[in-house]
Amino acid sequence: MPFQSGRHFLQIPGPTNVPERILHAIAKSTIDHRGPEFARLTREVLGGLKKIFQTSGEVVIYPSSGTGAWEAALVNTLSPGDKVLMFETGHFAALWRNLAVRLGLKVDFVPGDWRQGVDPKVVEAMLAEDKSIKAVMVVHNETSTGVTSQVAEVRQAIDRAGHPALFMVDTISSLALTDYRHDEWGVDVSVGSSQKGLMLPPGIAFNVVSQKALAASKSARLPRSYWDWEAVISANQTGFFPYTPPTNLLFGLKEAIQMLLEKGLEDAFKRHNRWGEATRRAIRGWGLEINCLNPKEYSNAVTAVRMPEGQDADSLRKQILERFNLSLGNGLGKLQGKVFRIGHMGDFNDLMLAGTLSGVEMGLALSGIPFKKGGLQAAIDYLAGGD
Amino acid sequence: MPFQSGRHFLQIPGPTNVPERILHAIAKSTIDHRGPEFARLTREVLGGLKKIFQTSGEVVIYPSSGTGAWEAALVNTLSPGDKVLMFETGHFAALWRNLAVRLGLKVDFVPGDWRQGVDPKVVEAMLAEDKSIKAVMVVHNETSTGVTSQVAEVRQAIDRAGHPALFMVDTISSLALTDYRHDEWGVDVSVGSSQKGLMLPPGIAFNVVSQKALAASKSARLPRSYWDWEAVISANQTGFFPYTPPTNLLFGLKEAIQMLLEKGLEDAFKRHNRWGEATRRAIRGWGLEINCLNPKEYSNAVTAVRMPEGQDADSLRKQILERFNLSLGNGLGKLQGKVFRIGHMGDFNDLMLAGTLSGVEMGLALSGIPFKKGGLQAAIDYLAGGD
Amino acid sequence: MPFQSGRHFLQIPGPTNVPERILHAIAKSTIDHRGPEFARLTREVLGGLKKIFQTSGEVVIYPSSGTGAWEAALVNTLSPGDKVLMFETGHFAALWRNLAVRLGLKVDFVPGDWRQGVDPKVVEAMLAEDKSIKAVMVVHNETSTGVTSQVAEVRQAIDRAGHPALFMVDTISSLALTDYRHDEWGVDVSVGSSQKGLMLPPGIAFNVVSQKALAASKSARLPRSYWDWEAVISANQTGFFPYTPPTNLLFGLKEAIQMLLEKGLEDAFKRHNRWGEATRRAIRGWGLEINCLNPKEYSNAVTAVRMPEGQDADSLRKQILERFNLSLGNGLGKLQGKVFRIGHMGDFNDLMLAGTLSGVEMGLALSGIPFKKGGLQAAIDYLAGGD
Amino acid sequence: MPFQSGRHFLQIPGPTNVPERILHAIAKSTIDHRGPEFARLTREVLGGLKKIFQTSGEVVIYPSSGTGAWEAALVNTLSPGDKVLMFETGHFAALWRNLAVRLGLKVDFVPGDWRQGVDPKVVEAMLAEDKSIKAVMVVHNETSTGVTSQVAEVRQAIDRAGHPALFMVDTISSLALTDYRHDEWGVDVSVGSSQKGLMLPPGIAFNVVSQKALAASKSARLPRSYWDWEAVISANQTGFFPYTPPTNLLFGLKEAIQMLLEKGLEDAFKRHNRWGEATRRAIRGWGLEINCLNPKEYSNAVTAVRMPEGQDADSLRKQILERFNLSLGNGLGKLQGKVFRIGHMGDFNDLMLAGTLSGVEMGLALSGIPFKKGGLQAAIDYLAGGD
Repeated sequence: MPFQSGRHFLQIPGPTNVPERILHAIAKSTIDHRGPEFARLTREVLGGLKKIFQTSGEVVIYPSSGTGAWEAALVNTLSPGDKVLMFETGHFAALWRNLAVRLGLKVDFVPGDWRQGVDPKVVEAMLAEDKSIKAVMVVHNETSTGVTSQVAEVRQAIDRAGHPALFMVDTISSLALTDYRHDEWGVDVSVGSSQKGLMLPPGIAFNVVSQKALAASKSARLPRSYWDWEAVISANQTGFFPYTPPTNLLFGLKEAIQMLLEKGLEDAFKRHNRWGEATRRAIRGWGLEINCLNPKEYSNAVTAVRMPEGQDADSLRKQILERFNLSLGNGLGKLQGKVFRIGHMGDFNDLMLAGTLSGVEMGLALSGIPFKKGGLQAAIDYLAGGD
Repeated sequence: MPFQSGRHFLQIPGPTNVPERILHAIAKSTIDHRGPEFARLTREVLGGLKKIFQTSGEVVIYPSSGTGAWEAALVNTLSPGDKVLMFETGHFAALWRNLAVRLGLKVDFVPGDWRQGVDPKVVEAMLAEDKSIKAVMVVHNETSTGVTSQVAEVRQAIDRAGHPALFMVDTISSLALTDYRHDEWGVDVSVGSSQKGLMLPPGIAFNVVSQKALAASKSARLPRSYWDWEAVISANQTGFFPYTPPTNLLFGLKEAIQMLLEKGLEDAFKRHNRWGEATRRAIRGWGLEINCLNPKEYSNAVTAVRMPEGQDADSLRKQILERFNLSLGNGLGKLQGKVFRIGHMGDFNDLMLAGTLSGVEMGLALSGIPFKKGGLQAAIDYLAGGD
Repeated sequence: MPFQSGRHFLQIPGPTNVPERILHAIAKSTIDHRGPEFARLTREVLGGLKKIFQTSGEVVIYPSSGTGAWEAALVNTLSPGDKVLMFETGHFAALWRNLAVRLGLKVDFVPGDWRQGVDPKVVEAMLAEDKSIKAVMVVHNETSTGVTSQVAEVRQAIDRAGHPALFMVDTISSLALTDYRHDEWGVDVSVGSSQKGLMLPPGIAFNVVSQKALAASKSARLPRSYWDWEAVISANQTGFFPYTPPTNLLFGLKEAIQMLLEKGLEDAFKRHNRWGEATRRAIRGWGLEINCLNPKEYSNAVTAVRMPEGQDADSLRKQILERFNLSLGNGLGKLQGKVFRIGHMGDFNDLMLAGTLSGVEMGLALSGIPFKKGGLQAAIDYLAGGD
Repeated sequence: MPFQSGRHFLQIPGPTNVPERILHAIAKSTIDHRGPEFARLTREVLGGLKKIFQTSGEVVIYPSSGTGAWEAALVNTLSPGDKVLMFETGHFAALWRNLAVRLGLKVDFVPGDWRQGVDPKVVEAMLAEDKSIKAVMVVHNETSTGVTSQVAEVRQAIDRAGHPALFMVDTISSLALTDYRHDEWGVDVSVGSSQKGLMLPPGIAFNVVSQKALAASKSARLPRSYWDWEAVISANQTGFFPYTPPTNLLFGLKEAIQMLLEKGLEDAFKRHNRWGEATRRAIRGWGLEINCLNPKEYSNAVTAVRMPEGQDADSLRKQILERFNLSLGNGLGKLQGKVFRIGHMGDFNDLMLAGTLSGVEMGLALSGIPFKKGGLQAAIDYLAGGD
């Protein structure tokens, strides 16, 4: 790449802009993964992750993408032919479903319009009617649609149904961005990864495991080795791993945890909420449509913007990338070409958001897409007002 | 950690000392994994890896440890109950066997003494007698023992037996250290990882796949999703991945490939061979015993040193670490406490080796272990002589 | 500092935002400043600087701030009591004058209003009348006022006067930002530094020296040692320095030169000109006043904004820093509190500028300073239009 | 440069190997040198430097090489024609003398053989005889010869003479390596720099100033501007500088101070003393001659090794560099070609020293220079023996 002046704006919904402190941390010299310094590192990151997942359960770290942690959640707890309940909230929910099917599970997949979250009433009704369901699986924040499901309410629905199913939640694009409480909400397996709210590059993913899930793993019969919780949890006791761990990404993870806890999780939730609101005001100001239908389900992490009829989102994104060095998220699956997505998460601030929205507004102007000027102004009016 | 003056000597058999160029590469700002710059990166690393594996086959990159790539090799090619032939060359061969068993394969595990490599004659005999074997699996360089098996000869043995089994080779600690020829040696699945000869931090692993292995994957019935070759190979066509790839480690991989190819693979093999020889001369000079019995099987990457009867390797290693800031590899499995291992690979040179051997010699002196002085001198006499 | 989410906007008029490529370059391990690799580095940076200064003259590199290079220009060419002609274009011109006085020179200091550049007619008139003037000293771009003097026209004025004075130009905040031609414009000593158009951290500065200046240095009698050109030029012949050079900053300089030349100087001038224009449109949109009076003298690098009567610039800047993590330049000397300065140079792009102007507009709103909304909109309308 | 496997051994007597923590610190994004974060940085580094110089006096930081700080010491305290007393302890003492002469001072330069330090008796005698001497200037550790003068004894000699001269000491290669006490030893101006005991890249230098020196500066008449203490000390009160300070090197300085104080200065003195002793044992083991004649004056930082008659040090150094990637210091001035110098300072440890000495021993063997094997063995025998 020849020199391009100025910093890239990486406003896809993850990986996010990675802070310099984390980039420097992962550039530290690799250490012995069987030595005493490493054991301290393991303990620190496991302790920190518990705070971030709001849990006292077991945290399992994988060198993998988030999709690996999806797989881990299933192979540790289920057996071939088990039935699970999933919800078509968007592209990633659909991918997780496909994965479950490939592994030989039976999936009840409640259809959705990719504009709304999981309906707790449907959860309750489905469970009331089918006691054979072994697990309820929910994507907390659908990265493809910008819709956040209400996990606490889903929990209540399961409870109302008095159903023993395991509760598994994908927190990949909600963790450290939106309040998420593994223990309080009775989640059995939380799935997370590094490259969103934790502000890390991709390459590590997590399972958080309740006692109930651990118990289930004793009798689960899907074959597993790499993803096996027991081996990891057991080795972690002494600070080590049953495989060569991704040392340098763990250096980054330690730094990320420290940065987040310096300011506190509440502050993270609040600032992302604010950027989401500012973004939505810009979109409305432009006269465009937010993909998420219910204000209660607006995402702190990403906002999907629907294109006017007949306009192609990908050609807009390409123009914005080439002209303004700004990467936006593309529409995935059913939404391909129909939405673009603005990631407003991670190592981010008001002026980076203003720059991002400026890029979108200028891109709209250049592309000849019908829109109203003033979205940016609406956003900064909001950002300048109160805290 | 309070400040410790000077650089750590990371002489475990991987991860290796990571060169500054690679550390800086992985500290570059993360980019959009669905954008054009990323597509170029994908093509570059795949092209480079083919040169390093000496193949024109398909290379599949995983965000995982090397153990993940072991699992990938099996789940893509085999079905529950399939029989495979493996050899107890050491700890890692045993772990790979355990993995196969966990996945429901039947393993013919030829016992070994952890001091010798795979015997091609045994391969031939076993195959001649059992046509049901679906795969022959060999660890090229046993990191736990410092023994390098003769892969080309194993290939010839398979050929002599006229056996159709797939041939799978773990190159984790041989790749870019010892000559390895995926295509010429008729390997069907090569398993590799980042943190040894490639000089990267851990976190990415590889499968290299022959046409025969690809064909086998069409009918293989072990469940698979994360490890599925097809999804990766298909997405790679356009430069992308079916999951969020470990962008920053791929930045490092690109740099690593470039560094290796700047000097050429031959040079890498030659320099590691030389460090191996110098190390062995030191060991003999100290009057200690090299674990590897056959000179033909000496490892370019790591040398395991047997402790005198009654002496504990781990207490020696601990003393050397605390006193000289040098990490040595521990004895694994059956060799625990009985050997220590000197890694002499990766971003390394003659003076780093001399420093390492000095640390060992001083550690031996301090620990009261009976030994003869002069090992270091023997090594530098060798290193100073000829090229 | 506790974690602050997102990147700082360093929009002071230098140091600028430093690109990652340069930060990584200066983080490379230090090398022997008397070895062959260093000699290559010296030759590369000297060759590159000649292209950037548009000269075939001698370039002298100092480990110093820009003020050191000011001093070097004088002590190498002048003798105690010599008379020089200088112009009060702003704070930095005044500082350079003070320096000359401290060194025992007599300075004819043409007064100015800090809103205009050097008037070539005045130059001509002054020189016509006083043949004893030994040097004419001009600040090309006054960083404190955002006013760029017309160096080529000053040269013509000197020529019209037929005056033999040396011509010295401070290019600290014009180099690589505004067209500057050492040779073509007949400059005898150019003074430059690292932390503006070159996008480096501060710490190195330059003199570019004509044959005429070199000749003058033979008889100049101001005492000098550290700043002595001859010692440096002579040592540079073999690639070395007469003192321990600032190796790591030179690594960065090499990278900076390469980055600039990848795109070409013309592109640098053009992009900075565009950011200047966008900034001025924002200021006019807000109903505020640009400090620079003559459009011909608008600066590519920095724009000083005059505060409405009775408003304090520093309190505005403080609020913007605390609230939006944006550093703006303060008013210096006579302009203290009366202007703030927006740096729009270095490693910068349209969206960083939009973020910057958003920060200013939000700060104005928060501070209760009377202004009109819409400055930001005017800027992005301009940036979106044409190239 | 094509890839060279392994780390360079930078064993010149400064710049030293720079620790990763410092390299990362200087790679942090540049900040506003007029903002509150910078003011904190200034205070931290000034406070830390006082501890390292063991002073409560004023510390002045320059963006310059050490030679700049030499000049600063003189121009702030002396007037044209003043007489100073200096000692020909080696190349750097001679350079400092030359500088003084260039500035118009009269130098009484006591001749020396470049193998011994300053003789306190000579100091006393010279001072007793000449009351017009304005300053006594001593190089604490002569980097070119590996000889450390006894600064405390020189102080006592001045006191015995009852002479009012200022006492100036160059601590460039002694600071943080050898005990040095600005206050206790009654030094008026200490000169220091970044690239030796502080383990930083070159680019910043220091003056430490007593009250007596400050008083002298009021009447000193050598012209000065860049080097003027008063301007710096005055601006430092609020945390700022009268010029653009070298921000990123200051980031590194903060880190360096922190690292040194984590272990304590005593530990630094002790470990460098130990490396010096080990190095000398190696030299004697090889049958070569140490340049420094008096054991009391052996240097903690660097050891100069005299070549056997008729052998060229530079050709040995070249061979060692090319073959073993080890940089050694060359003979300077009168010692050119006659000595090579082994730097054993900065970010260093026992195994790096063993690697260094191995490189020297192998180089000696390859070059055909007559020597005895066993120097390395003598060094590691010493290093392994007790602490």
